[in-house]
Amino acid sequence: MRTEEKVFFCIEKYQMIPKNSHVIVGLSGGADSVCLLKLLKEYKKQQEFQLYAVHVNHHIRGEEAVRDEEFSKAVCKKLEVPFTVFHYDVPQIAKEEKLSLEEAGRNVRREAFEKVMKNIKVSGRKMIALAHHENDNAETVLHNLMRGSGAAGLGGIRPVSGEKDSYIRPLLFVKRAEIEKYLKGQGISWVTDSTNEETEYTRNKIRHQIIPVMEEINPQAVSCIGRAAENMWKIEEYLQEQTDILYRKYVKKTGDTFCIAKECFSEKEIMQSYLIMRVLEQASKGKKNITATHIEAVRRLFKGRTGASVSLAWGLTANQVYGDVHIQSRKEEENGIYTLEWETFPYEKQQIPEKTYTKWFDYDKIRNSLSVRHRLQGDYLVVNQEGGRKKLKDYLIDCKIPRQERDKLTLLTDGSHILWVVGYRISEHYKVTSQTKQILKVQVKGVEENE
Amino acid sequence: MRTEEKVFFCIEKYQMIPKNSHVIVGLSGGADSVCLLKLLKEYKKQQEFQLYAVHVNHHIRGEEAVRDEEFSKAVCKKLEVPFTVFHYDVPQIAKEEKLSLEEAGRNVRREAFEKVMKNIKVSGRKMIALAHHENDNAETVLHNLMRGSGAAGLGGIRPVSGEKDSYIRPLLFVKRAEIEKYLKGQGISWVTDSTNEETEYTRNKIRHQIIPVMEEINPQAVSCIGRAAENMWKIEEYLQEQTDILYRKYVKKTGDTFCIAKECFSEKEIMQSYLIMRVLEQASKGKKNITATHIEAVRRLFKGRTGASVSLAWGLTANQVYGDVHIQSRKEEENGIYTLEWETFPYEKQQIPEKTYTKWFDYDKIRNSLSVRHRLQGDYLVVNQEGGRKKLKDYLIDCKIPRQERDKLTLLTDGSHILWVVGYRISEHYKVTSQTKQILKVQVKGVEENE
Repeated sequence: MRTEEKVFFCIEKYQMIPKNSHVIVGLSGGADSVCLLKLLKEYKKQQEFQLYAVHVNHHIRGEEAVRDEEFSKAVCKKLEVPFTVFHYDVPQIAKEEKLSLEEAGRNVRREAFEKVMKNIKVSGRKMIALAHHENDNAETVLHNLMRGSGAAGLGGIRPVSGEKDSYIRPLLFVKRAEIEKYLKGQGISWVTDSTNEETEYTRNKIRHQIIPVMEEINPQAVSCIGRAAENMWKIEEYLQEQTDILYRKYVKKTGDTFCIAKECFSEKEIMQSYLIMRVLEQASKGKKNITATHIEAVRRLFKGRTGASVSLAWGLTANQVYGDVHIQSRKEEENGIYTLEWETFPYEKQQIPEKTYTKWFDYDKIRNSLSVRHRLQGDYLVVNQEGGRKKLKDYLIDCKIPRQERDKLTLLTDGSHILWVVGYRISEHYKVTSQTKQILKVQVKGVEENE
Repeated sequence: MRTEEKVFFCIEKYQMIPKNSHVIVGLSGGADSVCLLKLLKEYKKQQEFQLYAVHVNHHIRGEEAVRDEEFSKAVCKKLEVPFTVFHYDVPQIAKEEKLSLEEAGRNVRREAFEKVMKNIKVSGRKMIALAHHENDNAETVLHNLMRGSGAAGLGGIRPVSGEKDSYIRPLLFVKRAEIEKYLKGQGISWVTDSTNEETEYTRNKIRHQIIPVMEEINPQAVSCIGRAAENMWKIEEYLQEQTDILYRKYVKKTGDTFCIAKECFSEKEIMQSYLIMRVLEQASKGKKNITATHIEAVRRLFKGRTGASVSLAWGLTANQVYGDVHIQSRKEEENGIYTLEWETFPYEKQQIPEKTYTKWFDYDKIRNSLSVRHRLQGDYLVVNQEGGRKKLKDYLIDCKIPRQERDKLTLLTDGSHILWVVGYRISEHYKVTSQTKQILKVQVKGVEENE
């Protein structure tokens, strides 16, 4: 099939562009988005819809950014597509909001898309067309496979996604090489987006070391992976629908407690897992990082005796109650943050207790107001008596705390200065010394000390 | 977990070795099978079962084969496991049966296992323990992924398989490196099986070029792929069970006709595909190579009008009948082989018709008896007037006929010499010339010529 036919087939198969809708292309000026714009312009010959292009100037590389903006504008002029440009000082925003350039860039692009959508006042569905292609998809699938993902991850990039299905990806079944070939054939040029060449370590290895070997084995490997992925996300959709049915059949919610009826144990193991996953998602209010270990722990409760219980992440506990399993949040640990109780009293050279969940601090050293929260960019501790600072992130890495756990830690903070990483160390700065006058005693509520 | 614990956990999780059963290990003398034998011997300390070892001497490499046999015997003596050896002249068998050494080897091993099983006259289940490990599994999954497999293929190697679940793979969650480490730790040696080092091109590339890069990205990549695979085959099992339910609900068989009720069109697309796949498997009597294209062709019939029909492989046709889809075999094309009709008559310099499905041959050139069959190893054609031979396989590759199609072609043959690849060319050797006396006219029954 020619590239055009392939893309139009994909648009129609997934009903991406209904009649009288509005399609906004995010145009970087790179091959992928230029190709997408050109093909959508062609598609207008056979379907009535409005096409728009949005370029975001990130102000990351001065001259290059100007070149890309000018180029994108020229492309739109030539193709007669309404063009809007947004300017964001991404390096500044990243600095202010303590984000990586990549994250900040993603945020401003999303903002720009939303502004454009809002400005379209006429009726009709509004979609954002993204230029992900078959190679992006194969890379995503492989990345997920080597992390041990389930069907959801092996499904790769979806052709249509987002709330109200507002993200569409018409190039998803076109290879990277085909995109460039198409543009050359059409005599259309593009700019080389240098941000694209700086992609991260993992994706680079997959792109340059794994995919080429796979293509030596099977020249169609990338398309085959795409086909396998399409099959997988269809399976995942079906399993989610089956889970809806099981949820209505076996799960009752009373207050904050989710009760899973013991009869669910007669379902296939895989569907028990999907059901438990769903309940944990609901109970943890959409928290991520629910792992196979959590699910297996809950599943094992069905075989346990009444009263058996496990403590899960996000402040959830699961209990076996006469065969059923009840999952509820421990009130005091809303958001996975421990509740801390404190008191102050004068320091009279008492023995300082060495406990994990009770700590004493020098009250007078506190500069701002105290708060209890998860970690933020810029957090630090003082790690020696000389006042040496260490970034919280580096400390957590030193402690070998897995990335997914780091975001769940409860911190007692004084601005960006961390008094206490609950469960771990306190900052040297606030330690009680012979000069201390007033003690701040902080204790985790409801946690028993093992002494 | 230690290797032992991991293996025992796997045995118990999948209930591989029930009490009082008989377990036969295929012992090559290589690390994997020696490790398997040792660990099963250890497992006997906690479960009552009988353990046997079978070594097959393939007579492929004279001295090496003797060494491997002696080594395997010695291992069994040391571990006190009953040892049986079988001798097969595999090169000879391969030659006689026109098989590759690999295929012939697989066949004789299966035969040896079956003999041993038959000789166990006491009661209790009988199983064959195979030494596939986590790396074998990851390689299989990747191979299948880059061929575009569905959930069945992405499920990789099953821990328990075969009719009556008689193949078990206790090492499936142990890495190759761990096996060697375990044996070294136990002071047990092994022989290096040189057949193992000659594995095929694809597997070698996956093993030596892809997996190592994946392990640079994630040192646990192999185990993660294994975990993803386990999840996938559990999903596949569930989907097959759901297909059973749909089959009972929507499919009726009358004579040779399978009728799929139109109501099945209300099911999720993926389940329609699973159901159609099942019907095609039944209707084609378990033929392989049912592809997404065949399934999609049948699925589209539901949207077609009455009377719409498609011709599938294996002599099957699908028809739309008032919304339902009927699948039946065309009698004349049993096994996917066309029926050929022939006649002979004297050559009187008539015009030779140029048709695709009717061919004239020089009858007197036929050496053996004619037969109509699928392709076999050793088939060839003559491709020029100088009598130049070409392997059939190479000709089919030149014609870009996909591998899965090649096995379905109907061939008119004279021993290994192919007169006609039906639908494609005839051998130059049998072409009618000015010297021809007698014509053999062959015509495909029931196929209309487009002239």
